[in-house]
Amino acid sequence: MFHNDLMAKIVSLCKRRGFIYPSSEIYGGFGSCYDYGPLGVELKNNIKNEWWKEMTRRHEDIVGLDAAILMSPKVWQASGHLTAGFADPLVECKKCHHRFRKDHLKEEKCPDCGGDLTKEKKFNLMMKTFVGPVEDEASVAYLRAETCQGIYVNYKNVLDSTRLKIPFGIAQIGKAFRNEITPGNFTYRMREFEQMEMQFFITPGENEKWFDFWKEERMKWYLNLGIKKENLRFKEHKKEDLAHYARAGVDIEYNFPFGWNELEGIHDRGDWDLSNHAKHSGEELSFIPHIIETSAGADRSALAFLVESYREEEKRVYLNLAPVLTPYKVAVFPLLANKSQLVEKAKEVYKMLKISDVKSQMSNVFTVAWDDRGNIGKRYYSQDEIGTPFCITVDFQTLEDDTVTIRDRDIMKQERVRVGELINYLTDKFYDFSRNLQCSR
Amino acid sequence: MFHNDLMAKIVSLCKRRGFIYPSSEIYGGFGSCYDYGPLGVELKNNIKNEWWKEMTRRHEDIVGLDAAILMSPKVWQASGHLTAGFADPLVECKKCHHRFRKDHLKEEKCPDCGGDLTKEKKFNLMMKTFVGPVEDEASVAYLRAETCQGIYVNYKNVLDSTRLKIPFGIAQIGKAFRNEITPGNFTYRMREFEQMEMQFFITPGENEKWFDFWKEERMKWYLNLGIKKENLRFKEHKKEDLAHYARAGVDIEYNFPFGWNELEGIHDRGDWDLSNHAKHSGEELSFIPHIIETSAGADRSALAFLVESYREEEKRVYLNLAPVLTPYKVAVFPLLANKSQLVEKAKEVYKMLKISDVKSQMSNVFTVAWDDRGNIGKRYYSQDEIGTPFCITVDFQTLEDDTVTIRDRDIMKQERVRVGELINYLTDKFYDFSRNLQCSR
Repeated sequence: MFHNDLMAKIVSLCKRRGFIYPSSEIYGGFGSCYDYGPLGVELKNNIKNEWWKEMTRRHEDIVGLDAAILMSPKVWQASGHLTAGFADPLVECKKCHHRFRKDHLKEEKCPDCGGDLTKEKKFNLMMKTFVGPVEDEASVAYLRAETCQGIYVNYKNVLDSTRLKIPFGIAQIGKAFRNEITPGNFTYRMREFEQMEMQFFITPGENEKWFDFWKEERMKWYLNLGIKKENLRFKEHKKEDLAHYARAGVDIEYNFPFGWNELEGIHDRGDWDLSNHAKHSGEELSFIPHIIETSAGADRSALAFLVESYREEEKRVYLNLAPVLTPYKVAVFPLLANKSQLVEKAKEVYKMLKISDVKSQMSNVFTVAWDDRGNIGKRYYSQDEIGTPFCITVDFQTLEDDTVTIRDRDIMKQERVRVGELINYLTDKFYDFSRNLQCSR
Repeated sequence: MFHNDLMAKIVSLCKRRGFIYPSSEIYGGFGSCYDYGPLGVELKNNIKNEWWKEMTRRHEDIVGLDAAILMSPKVWQASGHLTAGFADPLVECKKCHHRFRKDHLKEEKCPDCGGDLTKEKKFNLMMKTFVGPVEDEASVAYLRAETCQGIYVNYKNVLDSTRLKIPFGIAQIGKAFRNEITPGNFTYRMREFEQMEMQFFITPGENEKWFDFWKEERMKWYLNLGIKKENLRFKEHKKEDLAHYARAGVDIEYNFPFGWNELEGIHDRGDWDLSNHAKHSGEELSFIPHIIETSAGADRSALAFLVESYREEEKRVYLNLAPVLTPYKVAVFPLLANKSQLVEKAKEVYKMLKISDVKSQMSNVFTVAWDDRGNIGKRYYSQDEIGTPFCITVDFQTLEDDTVTIRDRDIMKQERVRVGELINYLTDKFYDFSRNLQCSR
């Protein structure tokens, strides 16, 4: 299925360790949807939290929003999504009847059987549903194809209920749906996906300044979270490739195993959205600001972080993830599982970290795994493979002097640390990493 | 619209301060959907985080999951949701053609115009969509009507990729959709809503023990987060009212202004779901555990916390929310906005708290608001209304001795605290509240 060796390994690791499973797998899978397993949901939540923190905490002039997926169809009429602007060119093979996106094909013939293709027709990407107890045209609704429209239709509500003044932003994380003709590349192109979008409202004329500002800010975010410079690049949109709403656009691309592909788009949407909503709704807007949008994919980010952090060495595979993104921050082992004194002491250390985690206002400071199977080497291997930055082992010396070994995932070295100093030790280590994440404005 | 005075006040506060807006409001609203504004998204995120922490951190034997909303239609065939089991009795007025849920009507005639009603017919609640570039039966899919099916179809994947042994649980937060005939009561009954569901897999025969355990655990969660005992009650399901999958069920009900209504359901689902998925998918399950489910509504919880915390006094309205749930933990004011020395010093305090918030592994420890409008009384009023537990004022004495006043939301008393001790002071205050939230198992 995956020509690329690295992708095949990552897909396999994701399923085997509980990061990502194919959706409805026991029924043969479904429409390129994927489910996040126990480790995957933690990784993805950490990514979403980092983005939320970046947008709504580090920046003072950005607030959050969480709009419903279902909206009035009039929203999509006004935004231009129901017209040809939001449609892909569909062709069908006259022989095998497989369907393809014309602009993704390199050949003029069917790539599956070599048959002739039909002329292209425009295929709208909006997914339709019916709301209310009757299935007719009056009750048609659409699953949102981009989260940002929920922000635009609430622009006035946000203005009226806060004291924000231009320039300011509204940030939102949520699901969007597109009826992709050819989804693929694991979680890269799915029909259901999660966006992390921020819309920044500005004085017309300042477009270039803010476009450049957000372009740089967003690039920094990926770099700060551990993606290497050489695996990221900007790709400016050509005039003829711009989306129907955009005056200018640039993608942040990542060097995926299947090629350079978009992680995030930064768009100058001008007054397209607010002007159209003002016109279609009749809502008075005395001043229509312009909009700079940053539109990132949570699933694409998760995939990029997995790819970027995947390391193979002679004797192990490990994920070199930033600690803030790992599902577990630390694992605790008793050296031997059949020595009750060791198990008891290790449980004590485990509980201490766990309680400290739960007691903090938010959790996730010391999410902690427990393992007492097999030998220590196997346990290290198992934690390396899921990216746990530190492993703590309780051994016989612990019973004498209350010290444990802490092993560092990346350099595989161990240090002895007093149990009473564990929390400070770990806090310092995590802080070392995050010191780059300062208030940027 | 709302006969109840309290509900009208809460709906108004929610819109005015940015907790909750009607969806697509500039287009006249849409199908009983609502959007969470800047304060609402923080409140709801805090509730979801508390639930996640409770389930996957405080309990050691529960892992998380995040399954797609779109699943194979076979899932819903197997679960019984596409058949009459998941349908409401629909009647229509022959005169005005309004539609109603028969079991919600007290009269035999139309409540809107007094006309005669049609015979009831079963109306299925699943919302339909079409996946793939052709709109025919083969590509029909459904928006999930409950998040738990995503857990059941991944049961074997989770078993295979973790070391969990029965009893264990899988927790999930996510959107679900039901084509309600009569949505209503603000965010209480919506067609799009968010569930917080945990499925606990047990040895058959231990059903009663675990049912009782989770019933008590879930009740404690609401109590710990500040809902008063007298506003919560259990309501056991009668045999004839049980859902099609349930062997036993109990609701945790809250005393809403519109009456006692379900906040959460705890169900003994027996082997209904896993047996049916094993049968329909052909997937081998050597041992089929029974399931105790806890199914809470994130929107209903948010509404209950808002209702519960709403207080009117002669000179103010305030939200007596648990600090862990409030959008802001603290607000900072300069006593006078036109004294640059005060503003500068206050900005310094504001930044100190903000940076401390951002630097913690997760944020939300010291989410901080800034206000320099009008007089101090108005600013207190404004923060009280959104539940901010503490307000810090920088005044002329601050410039002399580096102390500020901290005012407590609930008792409206002020203390002077040294700036250097602010973080410890606030941490202790928040800790006082959360000391009840201990590891329970």
